[in-house]
Amino acid sequence: MSQVPLERKVLSENDRIAAALREEFRRHGIFCLNLISSPGAGKTLLLEKTLESFPADERVAVLTGDIQTDNDARRLARYGFPVRQITTAGACHLDARMVERHLANWDLASLGLLLIENVGNLVCPTSYDLGEHAKVVILSVTEGDDKPLKYPGIFHRARLLILSKIDLLPYVPFDIAAARENARRINPSIEILEVSSTTGEGLDAWRAWLASQRV
Amino acid sequence: MSQVPLERKVLSENDRIAAALREEFRRHGIFCLNLISSPGAGKTLLLEKTLESFPADERVAVLTGDIQTDNDARRLARYGFPVRQITTAGACHLDARMVERHLANWDLASLGLLLIENVGNLVCPTSYDLGEHAKVVILSVTEGDDKPLKYPGIFHRARLLILSKIDLLPYVPFDIAAARENARRINPSIEILEVSSTTGEGLDAWRAWLASQRV
Repeated sequence: MSQVPLERKVLSENDRIAAALREEFRRHGIFCLNLISSPGAGKTLLLEKTLESFPADERVAVLTGDIQTDNDARRLARYGFPVRQITTAGACHLDARMVERHLANWDLASLGLLLIENVGNLVCPTSYDLGEHAKVVILSVTEGDDKPLKYPGIFHRARLLILSKIDLLPYVPFDIAAARENARRINPSIEILEVSSTTGEGLDAWRAWLASQRV
Repeated sequence: MSQVPLERKVLSENDRIAAALREEFRRHGIFCLNLISSPGAGKTLLLEKTLESFPADERVAVLTGDIQTDNDARRLARYGFPVRQITTAGACHLDARMVERHLANWDLASLGLLLIENVGNLVCPTSYDLGEHAKVVILSVTEGDDKPLKYPGIFHRARLLILSKIDLLPYVPFDIAAARENARRINPSIEILEVSSTTGEGLDAWRAWLASQRV
C-alpha cells in the first residue's frame, strides 16, 4: 500500500524519541507501563483502584490518552498524584512525541512509576513505542475469549494480560481457559491476571505484579 | 503532523473508489450498511441473529472484516447466505478498495442488501467511506455511557446507534439515559435502538429499522 514508506518513516521517528524517553526513564529510575485495551475495558477504573491503594508518598504519575475529553484525567486526579491528560484530537493512539511533550516541566527525578493509559483501541497503539518498559493489555471478559487470535499484535507484544471485569463471568459466554490458551498461542511467555476492579478480586495480585516489576 | 498530506491523498483515493461503489450499489438496487464498533461489542452475533431471521430467498450478503482470522465468516456462513471474509493483515479498518476487491465475481444483480462488518475499532474505520448508505455504530453497555463523548467521530457520522448487550444492564454501571443524551449531544438526529442478541430483546425493532431503510 502506498502509505507504507511514510508509515515506516513515522515509526522510525517515533522509535528515536521513544529511545530517548527510555534512556530518560532509566536515568531517573522510573518504571513505565503502557496500558492498552479496547474502549471501555476498564483501564481508567483499574488505574483509580491502583492509585487509591498507594500511600500518599508514592512516587507515581499518570499520563492518560483520549481522543477528545479530559474525563479520565479528572477521574484520576482525585487521588492526589500528578496526572496529565493527552488529548489526541482525533489520533487513534499515543505516540512518543506526545508523551515527551506532556512530561515537560515534570520533575522526573521525583518519580518512580509512570503509568500511561493509551487511547481505547486494540490495534493502533500497539505499533507505537512510548519508551515504556512493558505493555499491558487489558481484555474485558465481555469482549470474548477469541480476541487474542483476532487482534494478535498487542497480545504478541504485551508482557502482561489482565482479564478484566471477571465479576461479569456468570453472565457472559467467556471461557477463561480458552482465552488463556489463545493468548499463549500468540505469546507463550505472556503473564496473565484475572481482575475485577468492581469487587476487588485480583487487585492484590496486580499490585504484587507491579511491585515485582519495579524491583 | 507530517502524515497529514499523505493521509488526505489516501482518503481522497478512497473516496473516489467509494463513490464508484455507491453508484454500483444504486444501479443494482443494493442497500449497504457499514457496522462499526469496539472489539467484542457484538457485531457478529447481531449479524447472525439477523441472517437467522431472514427467509431463505432473502437477497442478502455479508462482508466481514478482521485483522487476522476468518472466524467471523465461518460463523456467518452457516445461515446459507453469501459471506466473504476480508482479512486486513494488520490494517485497523476496512477501505473501499478492499470492499471493491471482495465484491469481484459476486452477482450484484442478485443482491438487495449488503451488510459490512468492519474491523473492531471505534476510531479508524470512521474515516473510510465504503460506499455504504449509512453507518451503524454498536456500543455495548459494558463499555460505559461516556463513550459517545470520548469517541465522537463515529457517533457524529452514524445514522443509527445500537446499544447492545442490554441483558447485562443489571450488572454494569451504565446509564441508558446518559448514553442517549451523550450520543444526541454529538449527533442530534442519530436514531437509537436497544438490543440484546442473547435474549432477543429489541431484535424486532432492529429488523423493522432495517426494512424501513431499504424501502
